[in-house]
Amino acid sequence: MRRAEIQVPSQPLGLVDLPVPEPPSEGLVVKTTYAGVCHTDVHLWDDEMGLGNGKVTHFSDNPNYNFPIVPGHEISGVVHSLGPNPGPNAPDIKVGDKVIVFPWIGCRNCGLCKNGDPQLCPEAWNSLGMGAPGGYSTYVPVPERQYVIKVPESMPMDTATMLPCSGLTTFHAVSAVRATVEKMVALKGSASLLIIGAGGLGLWCIQIAKAVLPPQTRVIVADITTEKLETAKAAGADDVILWDVKGTEEDMLALTKKAGGGGLDAAIDLVNAGPTTTRALNALHHGGILGSVGLFGGCLNIPLPVFALKTQCVRGVYVGNPQQLKDLVALVDQRKLKPPPLVFYELDQATEVLGLLKKGQIKGRAILKL
Amino acid sequence: MRRAEIQVPSQPLGLVDLPVPEPPSEGLVVKTTYAGVCHTDVHLWDDEMGLGNGKVTHFSDNPNYNFPIVPGHEISGVVHSLGPNPGPNAPDIKVGDKVIVFPWIGCRNCGLCKNGDPQLCPEAWNSLGMGAPGGYSTYVPVPERQYVIKVPESMPMDTATMLPCSGLTTFHAVSAVRATVEKMVALKGSASLLIIGAGGLGLWCIQIAKAVLPPQTRVIVADITTEKLETAKAAGADDVILWDVKGTEEDMLALTKKAGGGGLDAAIDLVNAGPTTTRALNALHHGGILGSVGLFGGCLNIPLPVFALKTQCVRGVYVGNPQQLKDLVALVDQRKLKPPPLVFYELDQATEVLGLLKKGQIKGRAILKL
Repeated sequence: MRRAEIQVPSQPLGLVDLPVPEPPSEGLVVKTTYAGVCHTDVHLWDDEMGLGNGKVTHFSDNPNYNFPIVPGHEISGVVHSLGPNPGPNAPDIKVGDKVIVFPWIGCRNCGLCKNGDPQLCPEAWNSLGMGAPGGYSTYVPVPERQYVIKVPESMPMDTATMLPCSGLTTFHAVSAVRATVEKMVALKGSASLLIIGAGGLGLWCIQIAKAVLPPQTRVIVADITTEKLETAKAAGADDVILWDVKGTEEDMLALTKKAGGGGLDAAIDLVNAGPTTTRALNALHHGGILGSVGLFGGCLNIPLPVFALKTQCVRGVYVGNPQQLKDLVALVDQRKLKPPPLVFYELDQATEVLGLLKKGQIKGRAILKL
Repeated sequence: MRRAEIQVPSQPLGLVDLPVPEPPSEGLVVKTTYAGVCHTDVHLWDDEMGLGNGKVTHFSDNPNYNFPIVPGHEISGVVHSLGPNPGPNAPDIKVGDKVIVFPWIGCRNCGLCKNGDPQLCPEAWNSLGMGAPGGYSTYVPVPERQYVIKVPESMPMDTATMLPCSGLTTFHAVSAVRATVEKMVALKGSASLLIIGAGGLGLWCIQIAKAVLPPQTRVIVADITTEKLETAKAAGADDVILWDVKGTEEDMLALTKKAGGGGLDAAIDLVNAGPTTTRALNALHHGGILGSVGLFGGCLNIPLPVFALKTQCVRGVYVGNPQQLKDLVALVDQRKLKPPPLVFYELDQATEVLGLLKKGQIKGRAILKL
């Protein structure tokens, strides 16, 4: 098999040929079809990620992130070989089945891992494409069968590839605000949801919000470019607002509140920089909820008495659990939701793709064809 | 009737004799038995309340808070007279019934008010004891019958008086963390809840948490005095931790995490100053929730990427809705929950009581006997 690996941070990835691995006892090996390229891969390549408040983490400081790192946590492929034991919660799969991989794997021993929420396990370095080898490789070992999900016959494999990260994250975000939106529709007859950022995550988020929230929900999208707002409209947004970078905060806040009908009932911040999240919180109605999703690196300063008096909520969102991924696969299949525009590359272009992504020069979502 | 009113901020309250009011068309007049004295009454008296980030609000700047203000939002009494129309959602009440009053009244016209969540209406100045006359009065007009709840025969009236504010707020706080606690018990077999502050609210909160959360929940209480921690233990806390004001933040955080079994699954901050809330957030486990309740006046700075990656949640809590108050009355009656120690005063001692409360010189909860 052939894989691209980060051997030294910020240096070109090494291309290495290795024997195809044996399947783990309760797991399997997937022959990769596609691997999505996510901004987290750039963080791994840079060996640096901002944590807010000026703090930065370096993966190389954590002994669980041994270099070389094989990135790629959005993996689709075909079951190549199965270990002898089915293991816990194993789906009915056989060699040759088309699958996607749930990559957010923890210690596999704690209650969170065993009972359906492995993405909450603190030992997140076991995730595929993080501390464990990922999809920038023609073959990927998966430690347990329960971490693969069959791709429906009618679903394109490139679409399926996008689901375990950008799709799942936005599905989780919409699920996190859903109870509040439904409550507000019951109380007031309608509700407003602001989605911040009309990039790849935003386009998933708009479609999922329109598919699962009550029809009385007004889905509004904010971005700093009119071009992206056009794509948001095409994806189904009911309204778009331009957050003009030259506008005053007062004006932008007033615009946002007005779009939300006097205040937002819910917001999902896919950028999650300090200024975007602060504006969303300030535009929130009493009883409103803010989903905090993006990993841009900012901070949110909450004035506690106002926050309590307004009964507001801020909810962190990180990927999702295996059941949510299964539900998302069914939803995308039934409603024929579309991925953002995909740009295809070969495995030996991995370094080039990471460079372009870092400079913001990829329109849509980059995907490696293995 | 006789009432005590704030005529000029920070000056002694005026004692005024007036005719007993006629009942509003869809409402009633309650002959007051007791009125609780809450710290919010001190804010009204001072005409000043901190909002966090150094901001302060003055009630006199809002034309809806006309002076004189008659404080008192914890009101129990006997139905004195009923208006001719029952109005919406009217309970079956008659003259002579013992009742408590739901004081958190908004505009009475919006969906939030009409459909069961008036405490979320932005027009909060209509609340009794705030912009509308409250319980520091021998008679109180209530605008709609639906805002009174019958007191069960077996419940002491002084206990009942405490429920619409301190009881309801902590019931709401426990309800807000309940789903997370139940989920963590299902995933891990147990869960930890930290309650910050063992004052009047804390004693309600401990009892309610022990009554409604799964028995596998470890209820831990933090306070800065050993004396208060003793009362917390007596009220049913499974564990107490002294947040020593001379201890380092690092030590106090480590102590808190350890008490929570490596991290807290939930926290309820009844103080809600910046340092207490920050410590609670930092001690929270992945997937944990923090209920932000107190009105002390601080800020919380959230590093957004860490918050998102850990899938954490911060939830503002302010009083509760009428259904929650009904559920609380039933719970307190069934489980024989006890109020914090009560200290009784006469109406003409109102100024003295507010002064003592402001200086922190009341042990337990002050209550006026009308």
